[in-house]
Parts: sequence; structure tokens; C-alpha cells
Amino acid sequence: MELIYLPTIDVIGHTTFREPVQPKVFWVAKDGPITDAERLAEYSGRLCYLSFDNPAGRSTPEYITNILKQAHFSVIEHANITLLIQGISRSCSHELVRHRHCSFSQLSQRYCDESRAAFIVPPALIGTDLVEWTRNVEEAQKAYIRQVELLFQQYEHIEDKTHRRKVAREAARSLLPNATETKIVITGNLRTWRHLLELRTSEFADREIRRLAVMILEVIKQLAPTVFADFELYEPADGQTAARYTYKGA
Amino acid sequence: MELIYLPTIDVIGHTTFREPVQPKVFWVAKDGPITDAERLAEYSGRLCYLSFDNPAGRSTPEYITNILKQAHFSVIEHANITLLIQGISRSCSHELVRHRHCSFSQLSQRYCDESRAAFIVPPALIGTDLVEWTRNVEEAQKAYIRQVELLFQQYEHIEDKTHRRKVAREAARSLLPNATETKIVITGNLRTWRHLLELRTSEFADREIRRLAVMILEVIKQLAPTVFADFELYEPADGQTAARYTYKGA
Amino acid sequence: MELIYLPTIDVIGHTTFREPVQPKVFWVAKDGPITDAERLAEYSGRLCYLSFDNPAGRSTPEYITNILKQAHFSVIEHANITLLIQGISRSCSHELVRHRHCSFSQLSQRYCDESRAAFIVPPALIGTDLVEWTRNVEEAQKAYIRQVELLFQQYEHIEDKTHRRKVAREAARSLLPNATETKIVITGNLRTWRHLLELRTSEFADREIRRLAVMILEVIKQLAPTVFADFELYEPADGQTAARYTYKGA
Amino acid sequence: MELIYLPTIDVIGHTTFREPVQPKVFWVAKDGPITDAERLAEYSGRLCYLSFDNPAGRSTPEYITNILKQAHFSVIEHANITLLIQGISRSCSHELVRHRHCSFSQLSQRYCDESRAAFIVPPALIGTDLVEWTRNVEEAQKAYIRQVELLFQQYEHIEDKTHRRKVAREAARSLLPNATETKIVITGNLRTWRHLLELRTSEFADREIRRLAVMILEVIKQLAPTVFADFELYEPADGQTAARYTYKGA
Repeated sequence: MELIYLPTIDVIGHTTFREPVQPKVFWVAKDGPITDAERLAEYSGRLCYLSFDNPAGRSTPEYITNILKQAHFSVIEHANITLLIQGISRSCSHELVRHRHCSFSQLSQRYCDESRAAFIVPPALIGTDLVEWTRNVEEAQKAYIRQVELLFQQYEHIEDKTHRRKVAREAARSLLPNATETKIVITGNLRTWRHLLELRTSEFADREIRRLAVMILEVIKQLAPTVFADFELYEPADGQTAARYTYKGA
Repeated sequence: MELIYLPTIDVIGHTTFREPVQPKVFWVAKDGPITDAERLAEYSGRLCYLSFDNPAGRSTPEYITNILKQAHFSVIEHANITLLIQGISRSCSHELVRHRHCSFSQLSQRYCDESRAAFIVPPALIGTDLVEWTRNVEEAQKAYIRQVELLFQQYEHIEDKTHRRKVAREAARSLLPNATETKIVITGNLRTWRHLLELRTSEFADREIRRLAVMILEVIKQLAPTVFADFELYEPADGQTAARYTYKGA
Repeated sequence: MELIYLPTIDVIGHTTFREPVQPKVFWVAKDGPITDAERLAEYSGRLCYLSFDNPAGRSTPEYITNILKQAHFSVIEHANITLLIQGISRSCSHELVRHRHCSFSQLSQRYCDESRAAFIVPPALIGTDLVEWTRNVEEAQKAYIRQVELLFQQYEHIEDKTHRRKVAREAARSLLPNATETKIVITGNLRTWRHLLELRTSEFADREIRRLAVMILEVIKQLAPTVFADFELYEPADGQTAARYTYKGA
Repeated sequence: MELIYLPTIDVIGHTTFREPVQPKVFWVAKDGPITDAERLAEYSGRLCYLSFDNPAGRSTPEYITNILKQAHFSVIEHANITLLIQGISRSCSHELVRHRHCSFSQLSQRYCDESRAAFIVPPALIGTDLVEWTRNVEEAQKAYIRQVELLFQQYEHIEDKTHRRKVAREAARSLLPNATETKIVITGNLRTWRHLLELRTSEFADREIRRLAVMILEVIKQLAPTVFADFELYEPADGQTAARYTYKGA
């Protein structure tokens, strides 16, 4: 039985910006990273005021910082980032899917065989004696396997084996614990990612989702460094990294 | 340990319609139920075309039926229904909260003590020998209780007991099975309730959520009978009631 | 030709709360208004923590104030308010319909005859000489009427007169000015009404929508006084009432 | 004064797919176009069923077609397309911004000077004598220009000229007709683009937005050919191209 101590995150999709032939922005070269996500946000912001000639002479990082200060958050909705997240628990995903502005594709416990599913060790248990906890999830998985078999026999009048397996698995999963691993693809625009991170990097968030959120922050900062520049990591009393931020979205 | 065989549904909120002094609809009295939800939908529809004088002489059920035929679904968004649902599993609620146009308030496994939580018997197991299944969830609950105690000791340096209990419970819930009962308040407008019921009364839906959806249909039909009149119950091959519908929303 | 100096707002729908047989909240009687909207929000909040026995002995206004302080905004999503708004311009409605969490039914310029439509005097012009402005909108309306006639003739090969009128009106409306009156039904939950009012009561908002937002605030405060208690009116430099608020939603 | 007979559309953003190191899809090479948008949709769909080994041996176009047949529309939410649309009227944009799942950045009539704004000729008028229509919009624009000047004088006590101009423009725009050009950046995922096109390519849609929708269809088919393959153009009675589709989304 596999135990998982840490999730993995892959960027599997992100917005590419293509500047049109016209109107063209009068870009200003200054220090600071230039990304497609922030170029697109800036471009869209400049359309609202027809300020393509860049009268204030701002670089992209300067422009985006100004956007955040003025809480003009709608322009950061144009760039999207899609993450593949593996190695999180079902209780963690149950919280994630509440973020209604994101799009989700999640491993189905009705369709997939969970006989060899891995389990997520809760952060609070890492470094402690896991013998009992491990035995418990192992027992639960064995019970699941037996239950699938029993149900598969019970429903042998369903001729279509794919359908029969689904009926068996969807009922047997009742025995699987919250710790069971799930995998999920999440797409969100920069505004909704900010909102998710504002809530989930908080020291009051569940420790598993907080840890995930801090990891997500590190990953998506590569793609939109200025949009997330105000997030600041710190160590709260419980010793697990959290983040604070300056600009309040909506 | 309590086993639950069936959810309960209470309507705890619904939209009341107040006709303004003007414009007034020239209502037509004919047979058919008149509800606040459908009056509000009709009123809103008539605003779009300034047809308050009711030139076609339609009753409210006739008007609403016409709305559905023309797929003018936005007007049924004005009426909302709030349900308190008790006695469903966490795997069921995990599917429910994907309906992003609804609003949810759900029992928190981080804050609440689950030592005496009840468990939902999967519909596929009702009528079968539950001895083994029951023992399994009972073992899981015992393991949860022990784990809370261990964690409570492990974190005794956290002085605030409320906070310490939260830290213990949020990690210990990793052992709770999907079958664990949850309670949830769901608010949706008639359009999103239709969409939810279209998907979840299907014979291809999970049997627990399908059973719930069929029950919801019965309940909310009291409040908006014409909006849901095209849903028709039937018995699919697996013997558990499902529903078909005629008007395809969006 | 009718000029409109002020919109009108009617509450035509609102959520009624029905407490279920169980669980019952141990309500505490203290001073302060009790409304269905806030009872429902409180009820839903108490479900999350199974705190129906009201251990802190809070009244409903105290409970709601605490909710706002903790930014637990999702529980105020359960109560909805539907407003009929008349006497606003099409530029104002164009801004309103950007609030995607609301539901809208709006007078259709494609279907309705605008020959006798009224026009909204912009707040900045009230008290000034309106002769020229009035002549301009009057000319525009006359041009619309002539254009409808021309198009009606041009499309006389369309036999269905209703369809022919629609074709004529949807093209002729190209001449109608932003000042043309529209009517709209808007449904929103308390969280989205807060968000709309946060943005639109601002002194930086357009003066027509700001005036409307301040009026909406007065109206919906009757239905949820504590939820909007932190909004405070003030007079900015331009002399038109705006509002500030304390609790930042999301 | 500039008249516009046709909008322009530029793709200024789109989702790029990056396949992670693992899990890898066992892609099948067959005929048919392969795009990032559809690869991402397929990848996300395969996660739900852990079918990365591609047991059915489907190519990407085959997989996507199957997705549409099964109405598994959530997986096409992961890919986004951002369009810059120029040359549409404000009545057209008023309809567009109702699509709440899209993100919008639109030219602001409060901030921008509309003294040289162009005007959109309604499709129904193309090919007819435009002398009178043109004179009417020209008069409206002149009236706007005079009104801005009057307001700029009226508000000379506002020292900040940028602010004074805004006050003047936001009131003077009351005189601008629906035909006034607007520019807008719209981001939508493939599911919401399908929904928008389902409604707006209809022969019952307004002729300007229908024309735009048919053009959008042509543009975004380049980026996701199979997702939109079921849309079929036809000539309805009024002679302006419309589209039908086969797969009904939600």
C-alpha cells in the first residue's frame, strides 16, 4: 500500500498571448519579468481606456501592480492556468471543488478501481508513529476490495461487465476513507486563483489544503509573477507555512 | 452506531412574490396551480416584452409551459428554493457541490466531532446482509476516535482547546469513510435545480444521488409544478427510479 | 416625450424562511430586527458547526455581525432579493448586467416599440437648462420612428407582421440614445448584492448607477438590516451621495 | 465620420497544452486535426477514468466527438480562447455581456472620448439608402460633442481635468446612439463559447450578433475543430447566415 506525503503539481495548460496587428501597445522595456498572462491582462486593460500609446510609460509589471492597487481585478480574468494535481485526499478535493469559478476534471471513484489507491498522510501526522494509522487505511482498503467482490456477485444478473463493475464500485467506495488519493485537473483564471489562494493559504485553512495552496502559489507565480507578488509567506504558530496578501480581490 | 437508509429533505427557504402597484399583470383565472415561484417567473418574462396586458390570455401554467418550450430559461432564475438535506454521504455531497450555480452550507468535518456520526447505507446494499459493512464503518469510526485522542495529546502545546480540537479533528477525519453522514443546506434557482435534476435523476447517475434527486423533484414540484411538469419517473433496469424530461435547458 | 429624473425600485421577490421541525435553533430574544433573510443565513451558518444550541447565546443581529467580521460570506448567499427597477438608462443597465451572479430579465428593444419610450436625464444635468438635451433625444426618437416605418416597408415580403416588426425595431434601435429608458428585474443573493453595492455606491462609480445603488441600499436594508449595517452614506466632493463599507466580501 | 459594415475578430489568447511527464496518454495517430485545446480536453477527460493507456484506441478527434455525444461537457471547460472584437455596436455588446461565464474588458464610454467614434450600420440597412440614417448618427455625435463642452464648463470647479472630463463624458454619452462602436476583449472556455454560439448563431438572434457569432464560429473552429464540428451553416428566410448544431450542451 502506497502512502503519499506530498502532492505533485504540473502546469498542463496556460494562456498564450498573441498581440494583434492593431491596436499595438507601445510597450516600455524596463526591468521585470514579462509573461503572456500579464501581457494579456495589460492589453485588455488598455482597451478599456484606449491607452495603447501608454501615456504613463509603464512597464508590464508596473501596469499590473497599478491594476491590483486599483482593484481592477476583472482584467486578470483573461489569463488561465490549468494544473494537474496528484496526491491529494478526497477531503482536500471536496474543499477545492467549492471554488465555483474553476473548472474541474476529477478521477471518478465510481468508474476507477481503488484496490491499489494510495493514501495521503495528513500533514499533522507526518513525523509521528504511523503504524496504527497505516493499518487502519489498509483495513479500509481491504474491506473495499471484499465489498467490490461481494457486490460484483450480487449483481451478476447485470450482463454488461463494465456496468456491473460501476455498480459495485460506486457502492463499495462507501468504505474508502477521506485519506484516499484523488487526482484532479483544475483550470482557473488569475482572479479566481488569487481568490482561492487568499482563502487557502491562510493559517486558518486546513493544513493539507494550505500546504497545497502554498505549493500552487510557487508554481503559478512563474506564470504571472506580478499578479501574485503581494503574497508573502510566513510561519504561523503551528509551524506550517501560510501566506498573507495585500490586495483584496472580489 | 446509527445507520441511515434514507435522506430527509426540508424546504427551509423559498421565494415569495409581491406584485408591485404597477405594472400589473392582467392575470387570467383558469385551472392549474398558482405558485409564487411561477408568478415571479411570469412577471419577469412579461417585463421583457411589456406584455402585462396578457394579449394571448394565458394562465400562469400556460405561460410557464410556453417559456419552457421556447427555452427562455433565464426567467426561471428569479425564484429560489433552499433545501436542508440530512442523511447523505460525503461522496454524495462531493458530487452535489460541483453544481456551481447553487449555494452551499455544509457541516464541517474540521470543526464538528464525528464520534457519533451516522453512516449512510448505499442503496445497492439495502436488503443485503449488512453485518460486515457495518463492522467496517464501526471500526473506522473507532479508529477516528482514537486518532482524535492521540492528536489531542500530540498537540497539547496548543493552549486554545477549540483550536487544538480542530487540529486533531481535521487530521483524524482522514480515517472517516465516504459513508459518513453529512448535512447540507443548498439554495438554487429553478433553472439550476432543473439542471441538477436533469443530470442527477438520470439512470446513469450514482444510485444514492439519483435517489436524492428523485426525492428533491417531488419536493420542489410543490413549489413550481409547471416548471418541473415534464419530468417523468420510470423504472430502469437496475430497479431504482430515475426520471426523463422533455425540455432541455442550458 | 417623457423625461425621467429618478428611478423607481420595487421589491417583487424575497426569500421566506421556514424553520424545519429539527434541528431547531435555540434563538435568543434580544433587541434588534429579525428578518427571514438573516434567520436563513444564521440557520445555514449554524449547520456548518452544528451549533444549533447557540452556545454563545447570540441574537440574530449579533450572529450576522460576527459572520461579516469573519468574512464567512457564503452563508449570506442563501437569501435572495428580486427588484423591479424602472426608469434607468440603457448605459446604466449595460453596467448592471455585468454582475454575473445576478439574474436579469430586461425589456427587449428588439420586441418592444420604443416610439413612446421615456428618457433618463443624467444626474449631472439635473438643474441645468435641458432645452437642447431634450431636443436632441426628441430628434433621436423621431428618427427611430421614421426608421421603423422605412424598415417595415422595406421588409414587406416578410408576411408574419410580428416578425417584420421585430426586424424593423432591432435595426431602428441603432438610433436610440443611451438615455432611453429600460426596465429590468434583478435577482441577487445577499452576497452578490453586497458586492454590487460595494462597487456601485463608490464615489468613483458613474453618477446614475451610484444614485441607483444608494437607493437599492435603502430598500434592501429593510430586508437584511445587519448584512448591510456597515454601509455608511457620505457626501463626496461632487455632491452626490456615495457609501463606504467596513467588511470586505469576496 | 466613420461607418463600419463588418466587425473584426482577432484571437489574442488561447490555451497551450503541456503534457506532463506522467501520466502520459498513449496517443493514437490517425487523420484529423490535433489542437492544444482538444488535447487538453482529452487529457482531462482521461484523468476521470484513468484511461491514459487509451484502451479504445481513439484519436483526439474521435475522443472529442465521443465526449460531445455523451454530453460530458465539463472537460471542454479547460481550454480558453480570448478574442478581441472591434466594430460592434453598444446594443450588440449589451447582449454579449449577459454571457456570465465569459470574462470581458470593454472600452469605457465614461473615460474615452467618443468625438470621433465610428458607428455600426445595422445589417438590415446594408445595401439601402443610408443618407438619412447617417445624418442622424452624425447629428447625435455632434450633440454629444457640444454636450461634453457644456458639461466641461459647467464643472470647471473640478480642478483635476481627468476627473472633470470623466464627469462630462459619462453624462454626455446619454446622447450617443446604440450604433456607436465599441471594442471588447472576451475570454471564454470552449463550453461557454459553444453555449454563446448555440444561442447567437440562431436565426432568431438579432442580425448583428448573429453575424458576429457566425464569424466567431469560423475563427474558433481553427482552434478546436472537433468541438464545433457539429455546427452547420444555413440560409434562413431572411437571407442572413445562421447555424444549427447537433450536440446540446448545458
